This record gives sequence, structure tokens and C-alpha cells, in this order.
Amino acid sequence: MMAAFRGVWTQQFWRAIFGEFLAMTLFVLLSLGSTIGWGSPANSTVDNVPAPHPPDLVLISLCFGLAIATLVQCFGHISGAHINPAVTVATVAMRKMSVAKAVFYVIAQCLGAMMGAGILYAVTPESVRGGLGVTKVSKVKPFKYVGFLVFFLLLITFQLLFTICATCDPKRNDLKGSAALAIGLSVCTGHLFAIPYTGASMNPARSFGPAVVTSCWENHWVYWVGPVLGGVLAGAMYEYLLCPDSKLKQRYSQVFLRAGFPSDPLVEPDQNRFAEKQPAFTVLDVECTDRMERRGREREPAGEVLSSV
Amino acid sequence: MMAAFRGVWTQQFWRAIFGEFLAMTLFVLLSLGSTIGWGSPANSTVDNVPAPHPPDLVLISLCFGLAIATLVQCFGHISGAHINPAVTVATVAMRKMSVAKAVFYVIAQCLGAMMGAGILYAVTPESVRGGLGVTKVSKVKPFKYVGFLVFFLLLITFQLLFTICATCDPKRNDLKGSAALAIGLSVCTGHLFAIPYTGASMNPARSFGPAVVTSCWENHWVYWVGPVLGGVLAGAMYEYLLCPDSKLKQRYSQVFLRAGFPSDPLVEPDQNRFAEKQPAFTVLDVECTDRMERRGREREPAGEVLSSV
Amino acid sequence: MMAAFRGVWTQQFWRAIFGEFLAMTLFVLLSLGSTIGWGSPANSTVDNVPAPHPPDLVLISLCFGLAIATLVQCFGHISGAHINPAVTVATVAMRKMSVAKAVFYVIAQCLGAMMGAGILYAVTPESVRGGLGVTKVSKVKPFKYVGFLVFFLLLITFQLLFTICATCDPKRNDLKGSAALAIGLSVCTGHLFAIPYTGASMNPARSFGPAVVTSCWENHWVYWVGPVLGGVLAGAMYEYLLCPDSKLKQRYSQVFLRAGFPSDPLVEPDQNRFAEKQPAFTVLDVECTDRMERRGREREPAGEVLSSV
Amino acid sequence: MMAAFRGVWTQQFWRAIFGEFLAMTLFVLLSLGSTIGWGSPANSTVDNVPAPHPPDLVLISLCFGLAIATLVQCFGHISGAHINPAVTVATVAMRKMSVAKAVFYVIAQCLGAMMGAGILYAVTPESVRGGLGVTKVSKVKPFKYVGFLVFFLLLITFQLLFTICATCDPKRNDLKGSAALAIGLSVCTGHLFAIPYTGASMNPARSFGPAVVTSCWENHWVYWVGPVLGGVLAGAMYEYLLCPDSKLKQRYSQVFLRAGFPSDPLVEPDQNRFAEKQPAFTVLDVECTDRMERRGREREPAGEVLSSV
Repeated sequence: MMAAFRGVWTQQFWRAIFGEFLAMTLFVLLSLGSTIGWGSPANSTVDNVPAPHPPDLVLISLCFGLAIATLVQCFGHISGAHINPAVTVATVAMRKMSVAKAVFYVIAQCLGAMMGAGILYAVTPESVRGGLGVTKVSKVKPFKYVGFLVFFLLLITFQLLFTICATCDPKRNDLKGSAALAIGLSVCTGHLFAIPYTGASMNPARSFGPAVVTSCWENHWVYWVGPVLGGVLAGAMYEYLLCPDSKLKQRYSQVFLRAGFPSDPLVEPDQNRFAEKQPAFTVLDVECTDRMERRGREREPAGEVLSSV
Repeated sequence: MMAAFRGVWTQQFWRAIFGEFLAMTLFVLLSLGSTIGWGSPANSTVDNVPAPHPPDLVLISLCFGLAIATLVQCFGHISGAHINPAVTVATVAMRKMSVAKAVFYVIAQCLGAMMGAGILYAVTPESVRGGLGVTKVSKVKPFKYVGFLVFFLLLITFQLLFTICATCDPKRNDLKGSAALAIGLSVCTGHLFAIPYTGASMNPARSFGPAVVTSCWENHWVYWVGPVLGGVLAGAMYEYLLCPDSKLKQRYSQVFLRAGFPSDPLVEPDQNRFAEKQPAFTVLDVECTDRMERRGREREPAGEVLSSV
Repeated sequence: MMAAFRGVWTQQFWRAIFGEFLAMTLFVLLSLGSTIGWGSPANSTVDNVPAPHPPDLVLISLCFGLAIATLVQCFGHISGAHINPAVTVATVAMRKMSVAKAVFYVIAQCLGAMMGAGILYAVTPESVRGGLGVTKVSKVKPFKYVGFLVFFLLLITFQLLFTICATCDPKRNDLKGSAALAIGLSVCTGHLFAIPYTGASMNPARSFGPAVVTSCWENHWVYWVGPVLGGVLAGAMYEYLLCPDSKLKQRYSQVFLRAGFPSDPLVEPDQNRFAEKQPAFTVLDVECTDRMERRGREREPAGEVLSSV
Repeated sequence: MMAAFRGVWTQQFWRAIFGEFLAMTLFVLLSLGSTIGWGSPANSTVDNVPAPHPPDLVLISLCFGLAIATLVQCFGHISGAHINPAVTVATVAMRKMSVAKAVFYVIAQCLGAMMGAGILYAVTPESVRGGLGVTKVSKVKPFKYVGFLVFFLLLITFQLLFTICATCDPKRNDLKGSAALAIGLSVCTGHLFAIPYTGASMNPARSFGPAVVTSCWENHWVYWVGPVLGGVLAGAMYEYLLCPDSKLKQRYSQVFLRAGFPSDPLVEPDQNRFAEKQPAFTVLDVECTDRMERRGREREPAGEVLSSV
């Protein structure tokens, strides 16, 4: 277990943790704020523009999607811009992040979501505050069966994680557009489809924040189980079934056989990329959240490893 | 005919087939789901956000367009991300895919669409299910004449396929943005324009799925004829009229004359690109779905060809 | 004058002309189609999705903007994707296209617009056809003074042309995203702002098409004068005031002084870019519509020049 | 103080000032124009398309966001495309622009905003003109406490400036999409979230323009304090906490200790980037607005410095 903590106590790691916290605070504020129902024209703030009643789904979907696009653009090189515990868990499942780091990430995300929801609660007038965009199962008539709900959350998180895997895949060189925008539009698609079905929470922390603030815990577990299952399923399907890295796959079977030879004759000249994934003793050391973070580390190779506990 | 099956039974090919199946399942789920009419506030799932009544056209168009953008981003390097039988047929017409492969692609797409529509049918409460976004001619008053409908489907599929051809054209080096987004926005444009006219199905499989599930086959053939005609017309106009590859055109006339000289003096130094298209014996071997897939193959040159039946 | 016709009668030029015709036909069909008011639910084509009443401005603006984004993506390398007489005139004003070529472009655009509007007229049921999105001044109460209207058309065309100039400027190397999308979003912005003011026609041909089909010519001239003035003003301000190419400016003054020395000591080593702009005898020969077309020509240097009349 | 004026009186600088003025004029015209409430169908300009009543929030948010995206695309290489006094102040706070230059920028922005609002006032019919989109606190019932308002303006400007910092960071090489679009979508997100809360002015000049024209100065100061605080906070957090340039940080401490040794042994081989930031005597000389402008200067190294007063 101790090995898993390697490289955690660096300045760069705490920057990443703070980045996740800050990004989640901003995300919850910006996105949940868009679900507030401003009913009366008296709430109008720009002259001539009455407050919307009710907020429309296109507005909410765009706000969630573009907020993620913006925050991934902002924090991609700082923390990998997970901004979602399901992404963090899936990253661990794909063996690209240690369990220890992931624990800190998830804690930071949950704290950020609580912070965001708390601020929103404080600044939103009580008359329009309502449920603060909390996702509840109880009101959902057609979804008597919680299984349906889990399925939908799984589905939309599946497509989100698949998009993240495909977009950040270092094996691809055919992509030219903005990764942040692609991920944001995936979130937007999920919301456009799923708000009437399930409230479209593909982000456990985004459900956790308002749940803490409003003390509404009914069926809260499904908002963790669904997205996490969907994320892990997408990650596994992408990495192991559809786009396996042939060298990596071979290495994994070697690890499984407890036979990781460092001087493997199969290792090819592009040592650089492979070397990063070399710690053959424990898989938990494979510490690369995604391509962005990895590049960051290449510039400061001594940072993370040397200052480990 | 046997030659056409070359390179089909590889692992990579079956991955592509599974990719098309999975992408179509997700596409039908996400996009048709957005057309469901959630009428009553009792269906509200996010607090304060009533269900929409009726779903607006901007929401549906964005959902179709962004779903395609997301899925092309996800599956572009796995299967070429056709996600549409009209695209597959047009690819064959442009001699960039063998008929045999295309048959498997279309079957996978239809199975995926059935799967997606079936899941949607199962999870959508009966009260709001309606026609599951099935595209019907019967209700369309102004379109007594089926010819009009075929024209519109042809038109919007024409612009979609033209966009795909122009975006994935390996002869272009002036494009910088995301190919997936460009194709998705083309789908979005087609829907913004055509939903009130025709229901905007530029995808035969997207019409096939709900037709199977709801057993509604009225005039179903137009949803195949229109898009396929439009796709083939766009592909032909692009490849042979507007942007012909001069070397390729010459080669085709040589093939026609049964005189493909490998040591052609006209072949210029950039052998690399030309070499890919060298199998002079049968045109059906020109097996490159698009630039993405081709690059994939360049990394594994032995994969597809050697393991053919 | 004869010199101006140089390079017109090539196959590539007629392809460009046909491209402009086809692009304008598609643009008028797709964009005007979105302004049709489908009033009654009986017109519903997708089950559960009533026809919109009235079409909302976001839908129309997105449709115009994304249609332009899609068509610039499609035709950028074929014709430069002007799809707008104001763009063509501004290109001439910036001395990047000959008057002769521009005449053919504008004729092709007008024919395309008539074709598109004619098809739309034929396929749209009379009950919902209305004015086919024709832009009229007469109904605009607040715009008694035609000057106001000209100003608004000038304004939105100014920002469009400025965007085109800035996006396609070969002197810039800081742009990474899609040029087509940037131009399309500029069109979208102009419509979001200007539809309630003026009908937002920043495209004379888009006004010309429905005017011909519905024989509604009232104040039609303002839809030509406004955009053309705005386009030329933007082009001139960009090229001569804000982002002058220092070498080019010097050349122009030499041309003015009738003293174009080919062996100018000031010509610097990057002869390639400069050489394209060398025909010192007549300015009308400076035949480069934009970066895209220029690159096309670099690949086929002999095409245009040798086959001139 | 005199040193700060170095490099101001060049032609390129006045071009930048004029660019800021022009961009702000266009921005205020385009974006405020979208908030005008066109109530009656008599205002319809495109046939069949009634004027909106009221304008919806998605339209306004898209118009603000896409206008910024378009104008950053247009003016990025001319003036750095601040188009916002909060951006200019934050740039100064990050020591990337001199105070003197910033003063001219802010003056140009305010003049541009007055110009834009004045034109809008003149051309908008009185019946629909209303408050010209002026942002007032007085009408905002829930925001009795001005502190709340300042917080919200701070919040949305924080995310905008963080996006600008992250997007234009020359240390990043993982970004592929359009910077202009990313910044525009950040503005759009802020508006989607904040219009019902605060009127969403993350731009002091955009509030200043209509305030001058309508002589409505109530609580006007909060529209300067909030955004400027948010911008400076974001810039400081990004530059000094989350993404510090290690060499630069060290230099700053040297400057603080009055010990800037030019032949510092720590200076590494990439002298190019470092050399730009060498004037060790006064921090005010660090005159690079952003990456774009810097590149522009690299092409004309003699321009700015030699023609200083």
C-alpha cells in the first residue's frame, strides 16, 4: 500500500488536488445555478429580459456541457480535469492512476461540490431556491424500478467516459479539434437526452453536493453506482476490448504471471513512452492521469518521484 | 467475389463491426430519446425543472447533431464511424470499401438500431412513449406525393455525405478543426431545416430501429431510398466531378482497360500514398474506409491482409 | 481588360463556379427552409413532435450559421466558399480576385439562390409557405428610414467579412481551430442580433432568390448596397489599415508609380509567397481568392495560367 | 514612470488601440442588441417570423458568447482582443502589460462601448428600446446586499479570466482547438448561469456604455469592482499558484531583491523565450499582452522598441 502513495506528497500533486476542488466548486455553481427556477418578472436583472419560467432544457444542457468544456480547458494541464468521481474511478480501473491518488481526487471533488452547493444555497433567494437542482428518484413516477434509473445513469456516463478515452488516447493521431470541447459536447448530449428520464446526473459529486446541503439522501446511492459502473464499463471496453495497446496488454499478462523482465526483448525503440509505464513491481504506480498530465511531468521529471514520502 | 472477402476475418475487422453496432445503439438511444414527449410536470426529475411540453426542435436537432459529433469522435479510429447505412453505401460507391465489408457494416448498424430502439421502448413509460420517434409518411399532410419526401431525404443526406467527403478527404491539408464536430454540425443543420418537412431521417437505420420495435412499416422504403440516393450522389459528385484525384482517375481508366502497369512512369515520388491504392487486380480490394482507418492500418500493416480467408 | 480573363477558362475554374452554384442552392434551401412557419400539429412528421409555431430565432440563427459552417467546410477548397456576393465583391476590392472571375461567381451565386428558392417554393405546401423568408423593408415599422436598414446590413456584413479576412489571413499563424466554424459562428452571431432589426440578410443572393420567386422587389436594392458596402469596408479596413502586408503595400505604391522593378532589392528571401503576387503589369491578375484556393493552385501550378484564353 | 511609456507611440500600438475601440463598439452593438425586447408581430422583418417576446436566455447567452468568439478571432492578432477592462487589468496584474498601455486600452474600450451603445440607442425604435440592456442593481429584489452581486460578478469573471489564462498560456502544448471559441464558450457559460442572478455583466465597459447613454449610474461601481476583482484573482491564482513558470518566479524574487544578474547561471539554453522577459530594471517593461501579440512582435522586432519616445 505504501508504494501506492509514492509521488503523492509533491507540490504538483497538491496543485492538482486544489485544481479538482476549485474546478468542482465552479462546475457545481455554474451548472446547478442554471437549473434554478426564476419565476417572476420581478427577478429580472437585465432590463427588458424577464426571468425564464421555467428554465428550458436546452439552456440547462448547454450550461452543463459548456461549463465542462470550459473547465476541462482550464484544468486539463493542472489536474487532468476529471471533475467527476466516475472519471477518477474509471481512470483507476484503466490502471492509469493509483488508488491512493484517486482517493484524494474524490475527496477533493466531494468537498468542492459541497462548497459549490453551499455557496449557491447561500446566495439564491429562498423564494426561487427550490431543491437546488438536487437529483431525486422519488418524484420520478415512471422510474418505480431503481434498476431503470441505474441503467440510464450508466448509459450516459458510458458515452461520456468512452468519449474521454477516445479523445485522450495517446495512440490516436487523427484528432485535430479541441479535446475540451469534445468532452463538453458529450456532456451536453447526455443532458439533452436524459434530463426528462433521470435528471441526467452523470457525476456523483454533482449529486452529492446539493444532497448534503439540502439533506436529501433518498436513493442517493444510485447516483454513485450508476455513473461509476458506466465509467468503469466504458474504460474497460475501450482499453481492453476495442483499442488495446498491444505492448501494454502483453505487459499486463507478464505482471499477472509475476514475470516482468525489464530487459524484455520485445520492448521496441520508442522507449520513451514505454518507460513511463515501467514500474513492473506494482501496477498501482502507473501514475499517469492522462496525456496532458503526463506531458506536464515530462517537463519536470524529477518533481513527482523524488519528493515522494 | 471471394477477393472481396479478403481481410474481413481479422480481429480488427470484428472490432470495427462491434464498434458500429455499439455506436448505432448509443446513437438511437440518445437521439430518439430526445424526441419523446414528456408532457406532465409530474415527470420532472430535476427539482424545479418541469418536463418539456413539447420538446423543441432546437433541442432535438442539437441532440442528433452532438450525438453524431460525439460518436464520430469515439469510433472514428475503430470503425470509421459510419453509424449510417447511407454512409456505408456511399463509401462503397466511392470504391473505398468492399461490398462484403459493407454488408457486415449495414447488418451491424441495423442490429444496433433495433437494440437501441428496443431498450428505449422498454425503459420509456407507456404514457409518454408515443411513436418512439418513428418517422412516418402517413401523417405528413403536405407530402401526399412520396417523391417530395424522397427529395428531401436525398437533399439532407447529400449535404451530410458531401461534408463527410470534404472533411475526410486525404488530399486536403487546409482543414484544422475537428472532423467529428464538422460532421455533427452538418447533421444538426439538416435537422434544424428538415424536421418540419420530413422528420429529417438522413439515416435509414435510425428509421429502421423504431419501425421494427413499433411494427410500423408504412412507406418505410423511402427512408432507405432517399438517404442512399443522396449519399451516393454526393459521393460521386465529390469524388468524380468536383475533387477528382488525378492519379486515381487515371488508374481507374487503366483498371477499366485491364492495363494496370505497376511500373507506371506517371507514378510520382510520393509512392507512399499511391502504394496504398495499388491492388490493381480488383477494385473491390481498395479497402480504406477513410483516413482514420487507413492510419490505423499503417500502424499494423500486416493485420488485415495476412489474416484474410 | 483581356488580361483580366486570364486563367478563367480552365476546368478548375468551372468547377469553382459549379461549386458556388451548388453551395448557394444548398444554403438557400437549408436556411430559408428554417424560416417557414409550420403552424398546425397536423404538420407533425416525427411522432410526438408538433411542428413549431412560430419558429424561434435561435433555431433560425443556428440554421443559417451552421449551414454556412458546413458549406464552407465542404466548398472551401473547391471555390473558396464565398457563397455570398458581398464576399466576392470584397475579395475583388482587396485585389485578391479579378473582376472577371467575380462576375462569374456572382452570376453563379444568383442562379443558385434562384434554384434554391424555386425548389423550396415547389416543395413547401401553400398553407405554410408565406413569404418564403423573403426580406422586406415594407413591414418594418421602425425602419421608415431606409438608411437605418442599410446601416444594419452594413454592420453585420462588416463583422462577417472582418472575420473572414482575419480567419483566412495567410500572415497569421496563431489560429488553431476550424476556419469554417469560425465563419459560421460569425453568421450565427449576426442573425442572433439582427433578425428583429432587419431580417438579417448579410447575403444579397439570399435575398435575391426569394425575391425572384415571389416577385417581391420592394426596396430590394438595399439588400445589395448594405452588405456590399459593409464587405468592402471591412476588407479595406483589414487589409490596408489594421493588418497591412508591408511588402504588399510597398508593391502597390510601386504599381501606382508605374515602377515595378522585378529585381527589387527589398524583396526578401521568402520568394515563394511573394512570387505569387508578382504580375506587376496589371493588378487584376492577382488571382488568389483565399488561402485555400491558393494552396490548391500550388499543387497544380500549371493549371490555371497555361490554359488561359 | 517614463519607462512605462516605452514602445507606446508606435504605429502598431495605435492599431491595437483602434482595434480595441472597434471591437468593443461591435461587441456592444451585437450583444446588447440581442437583449432588446421586440414585443409585437408588427416588428416582424422576415416574413412568417414574428419578433420574439420576450427574447430568451439561450439566444442572449449565445449572442454574447459567439460575439466574443468572433471578435477574439478577428482582433486577437491586432490588439490581443481584450475587449474587456477586467481582462486588461488582469493582464497588468500578471505583469504582461504595462500600466501605461493598459490605460490607453481601457480608455479605448470605454469609448468603444459608448459608441456602440450610442448607435444602438439611435437606431432602436423608442417603443422597444427599454433600458438598452443596462445592468441595474435596483430591480434585483433578492440582491438587496450588494455584496452578493459583487460575488457573482467576481465569480463569472474569475472563470472567464481563468479560461483566458489557461488558453493563452505559452507553456501549454496540449491544446488543439480554437482559442477564440474556448473563450467565447466561457462567456456563454457565464451568461447561461448568471443572467437571472445578476444580469451577467463580466465586462465593465459593456455596463459603462449603456449607463452613459441612458444616464443610469445606480450602483454602477459594482460592475467595475466585481469583474476587476475576479479577473485579478483568477490571473494571480493561475500565474502564481497553479501554473507558475518556475524560471519567471525565480526572476521575480531576484527583482524583488534588486539582484537581477543578466549572466545568471540558472538561465537555460532556451534564451529566446527568456530574453523577451529580460528588462530587469523595471517590471513595467514586460510588455507582452499575450502569445498572439508576442508572435506579432517577433516578426517585427525593431518596431516597438525603436520608435519609443
